[in-house]
Parts: sequence; structure tokens; C-alpha cells
Amino acid sequence: MKRFAIGVDLGGTNLRVAAVDDTGALLDKLTLATRSREPRESVVRDMREAIQALREKLAGVGTLSGIGVGVPGIIYMETGTLRQSPNLPGWEGFPVRQEIEQLLGARVWLDNDANVAALGEFWLGAGKGQRSLCMVTLGTGVGGGLILDGKIWRGFLGFAGEVGHIVVSESGARCACGGQGCLESESSASAIVRKARKALTEGRSPALSRGMQQGREVTSEMVFESAQAGDAACQAILQSAGRYLGSALAGLVNTLNLPLYVIGGGVAAAWDLFSPAMFEELRNRSYVFCEGATLVEKALLKGDAGLYGAACLALAGDTA
Amino acid sequence: MKRFAIGVDLGGTNLRVAAVDDTGALLDKLTLATRSREPRESVVRDMREAIQALREKLAGVGTLSGIGVGVPGIIYMETGTLRQSPNLPGWEGFPVRQEIEQLLGARVWLDNDANVAALGEFWLGAGKGQRSLCMVTLGTGVGGGLILDGKIWRGFLGFAGEVGHIVVSESGARCACGGQGCLESESSASAIVRKARKALTEGRSPALSRGMQQGREVTSEMVFESAQAGDAACQAILQSAGRYLGSALAGLVNTLNLPLYVIGGGVAAAWDLFSPAMFEELRNRSYVFCEGATLVEKALLKGDAGLYGAACLALAGDTA
Repeated sequence: MKRFAIGVDLGGTNLRVAAVDDTGALLDKLTLATRSREPRESVVRDMREAIQALREKLAGVGTLSGIGVGVPGIIYMETGTLRQSPNLPGWEGFPVRQEIEQLLGARVWLDNDANVAALGEFWLGAGKGQRSLCMVTLGTGVGGGLILDGKIWRGFLGFAGEVGHIVVSESGARCACGGQGCLESESSASAIVRKARKALTEGRSPALSRGMQQGREVTSEMVFESAQAGDAACQAILQSAGRYLGSALAGLVNTLNLPLYVIGGGVAAAWDLFSPAMFEELRNRSYVFCEGATLVEKALLKGDAGLYGAACLALAGDTA
Repeated sequence: MKRFAIGVDLGGTNLRVAAVDDTGALLDKLTLATRSREPRESVVRDMREAIQALREKLAGVGTLSGIGVGVPGIIYMETGTLRQSPNLPGWEGFPVRQEIEQLLGARVWLDNDANVAALGEFWLGAGKGQRSLCMVTLGTGVGGGLILDGKIWRGFLGFAGEVGHIVVSESGARCACGGQGCLESESSASAIVRKARKALTEGRSPALSRGMQQGREVTSEMVFESAQAGDAACQAILQSAGRYLGSALAGLVNTLNLPLYVIGGGVAAAWDLFSPAMFEELRNRSYVFCEGATLVEKALLKGDAGLYGAACLALAGDTA
């Protein structure tokens, strides 16, 4: 019999559940919409049913080691409760781990979604074969996760890895965290859209103007396409995002001297457009950076990193 | 018989050697001037003689566990050679560890001076009883050291802890590292002196002007005194240093979520003058910062942290 775990990626939009065996093979997968506006009991019920369905389906195939869950937000690791979760309103203070354990009668491993994604990339993605890495996820927000000597580094309260709030611009844009000029407010998909809207309003982007005339909304993908097609304003926006990312990476390289930094999230799709500026800034701002030895790479597992990482949490038990 | 180690703090100015037992008691100490302009063989010879003197003196008192040496500069941990050392010109590429081991016939533990100071504070100073800490040493430059779960975090090449080169001001002053707006170029003793000279030239500091008339040179201590005595320009310089330190700490708190950040080095003497601005900036820029739980404290061992830390390295052997 195989050993397998169930990984859950509880996002603000989708609830995804997968069974993964200890070699990293995906056995089965379910995707549901997260009913994040309904009471959290509905979401927990959906999660329980999906997990139960996979468990029964695989009963003859292998033994369930446990369930790993990646949750957006800041988690008190000791108690398994959520401290803060912008994408799951009403979940603050909710003892997620305990609730699922009771409902399912199985051991549950809970962690922040960015930590879990970092673990996924470490196990099966860009970090395969490394001892340590830092993952930076450039999505609507900017998340991060640290794997140090093979384990998630959680910090003393469980809040580590919030690299999105490293300061990159002293007097930069206001950030949702209360600060300003954070990596998140300069290099996230939302920051890119904000800057694109500004360029559009100021009449600096012919490509975005054409898009608007076709009735499209400004999205980060539209900025990527326009930059790719040669729109100078969109190119500048992505170069700026890359430069600020390079500045934050320089601080991480100088502080942690890890062998690998993995860039994931939706913005990573624009790698060719932002990474030259990122590397330039990183070289200028970090004398600890070693060309050829210190690696900065694109994530490999895309949206599945969190699912694999959540399963890995449960497979490894306390040791991860 | 006691177990003791010999700790060496090889600074650009002083070479200090101490015998410390495994309870942290100082058994004996020697201080020499570092002959940093003479060939490195002279410095190594002085070091050997001082170590030998202590060793013989303590022969009846205890057993020597080993010798720990803190060196300014970036060290390739695997080989024990110096990659870069601004304060010890001509030592680049020098296999320090091997050289001392051969001369003394004893096991030598080598590390960066800031790492060793962090270990000293962890063992016997502000970090007593903690599991992890980050030390920031504000001297002529800004050094740093990370202790994670009781061990020095060195990174994959041994260059970790260079927190002095975290970017705090996008378009700030040029830094010796090649970057600009680094913590070192905004909050070190040298940065404070640079800003004070500017204030003096621009006629903004009556206190510094008086000092100059008395034939004194501008030093960071003079800026501290002047600020203490009410000089507004000097107060603003220290507040600015504190704000930038707070910004760098915010990034560290967000990334690592450690229970303790220790501020050492000569500038720490001005704690009361810069720390209010530091805490204000830290609170504004880190939502991971937990009032009352996340501690930022002044170093306790002052100039001796490196000596105790170097001894601790040798006492703990590979485990530190």
C-alpha cells in the first residue's frame, strides 16, 4: 500500500484538494469554488466533503498519512488559529486546525499558503535538491516562504516569510499593511494594475488605450501583453516592478545568503519582461550575491505548489 | 579541571584574546594593538604568542577545548579563508584558520566578527534564554549576525548576516558596498559623522560649531553629546539614523519573525536619542511586529560580545 496525504489549498477564490503520494505523484484532485462570503462553516463543510470523497476513493490504493492545509493569512502556529486573513473575512480567531481535525478524525497540518507553496517548490519544483530557499509569490499581494535547512522557517509566532512588506521605497505607495513603499505596493499584480491605470489616465499607454476601447478591463496580464507588444509605458511598469523586487532580494541575499530564491505567482509569467531589471538591481545592491552560485529562478509548479506543499506538510509530519 | 576556550577578537585596531570557561566566566584577557599595516604574518605571530601565553598560564587550571577567532570580513566557511576584509588589507584569500591551526597545533573555529558578537550576546548578553535573535552592530560600518534555533545562521557560502546592506533609502547615500541607501550608509557611526559634517558646513549646528572652535574633530560621540545637550541638528541626525534602522528592522521582523533584535556597536550608546524614532518606524512598517512579544533591545556585553562569542564557538564545537 502507498502512503499518501491530502493537500488542501484554501484560497479566497478556489478550494482545491488533492491526494499526493510520498513520491510526489498526484493521485487525484478536486477543485471547488470557495464560498468565502458564506459563513465559514459552509467552507469547512465543503472542505470536509471533498477530503472525505478523496479518502474513500483511495481507500483501496493507500494509507492516509494526514491532511495538510494551506490557508491565506497569518496563523498562530501553536493553536492553529487565524490571526488575520484578508481573503477569508470572518475567519480571524477561528481554530481552523482543531475544527477540521474534529470533523474528520484525522491529524491536520496547517500553515500559511505562502509557506506551503515554498515547501511545494522545495520538494518538487525549482528547489529540488537544494537545502534552503526563499520563495516570493507575486500575486494580488506578495507572499513569501522560507525553507531553511529543509524546514519551513516560521519564526517564534509563526508569522515569518512576510517578505511582501520589506520596504523598497522610502516614500512609495501606501500599502494595505499600513506601511508604504513595501514590495507588495510596488511589485504585486495589484501594484502593476494601479500603475497601468495611472499610465492610461495620463494617456501614456497607446496599447492600454486600445484595450479600453475594446471594452477590456485593465489586468496585469494585459500589461504583460502590451509590454511584450512594445508598449513603452507597460515595459517601464514591469521594469520598475523588477527593480523593486531586485532591491528586496538584495536585502534577503545579504541577510540570509541562501542558494536559491524562487519567484512565483501570476507576475512570474512576465519573467522575461521584469527579470533583467531585477538582476541588475540585485547585482548593484548585494555584494553577497555570487554570480552563478546564488540562484534566482522562476517557480516551476505554478498554481499547484500550494497543493503539493500542503501534502508534503502532512507526509513529513512535525519534521517539515 | 575546568573546560575553557580561548576567544580571539581580531579587530582592525585591537587584537584581544581571552580565556573563558564553559560557564561564561572570564579567566584572563590580553589586549594588543593590531599591526594591521605590517605583513599579516606579524599579526598572526602576535596572535599566536598571546594565545600561547594564556594557554601556559592556565595549564594548571583547566583543559583547553579550542580556539575561536572572530575576524572582520567575509569568510568562506568551508575553507576558512577570507574573501573580503576592508579592515585587514592584504588578508584576502588568506587561509586564516589553517594557518593558526598549524602554528598552534589546536583546533580553531573561525567566523565573521559580527556573527561571533551575535553568539556572545546570545550566550551571555541580551539574548540569554532566547532561542533565536538577530544582532545589528552599528559601528564604523554596520554588521549583523543571525542566531536561529541556537545556531549561527551562516548561509550556503558563509556570508549571511550582512544586514548593513539592506536597502533603506532608494536614492540614499552611496555605500562602500557599491549600492546606495544601505542601512550602513544611513545609520552607521560614519554616516552620522558624514551628516554632522554637512550640518556643520551648512551652519545648522551651533553645538558642533562650538566643538570645532575648541579644536575638536567631529565624531559620533560628539554628535551624541550635542544632541543630548539639545542641539536640534544633531537630534535630527540621530532620529534619522533611528528611522532607517527601524525600516531595516521592519523588513527583518516581517521576514524572520524572531523574538529578539539586539542593537550593538558604538551607536547603541545613543539608544535614548534614536530608539523612539526606530520604534515608531518599526510599528508603522511591520504588522508582524507584536508589541510586548517582539523585543528590540540594546546589547549588554558591549565590546566584549565578540570575545565571549569566539570562546563560545570553540566550546560548542561544530554545534554552534
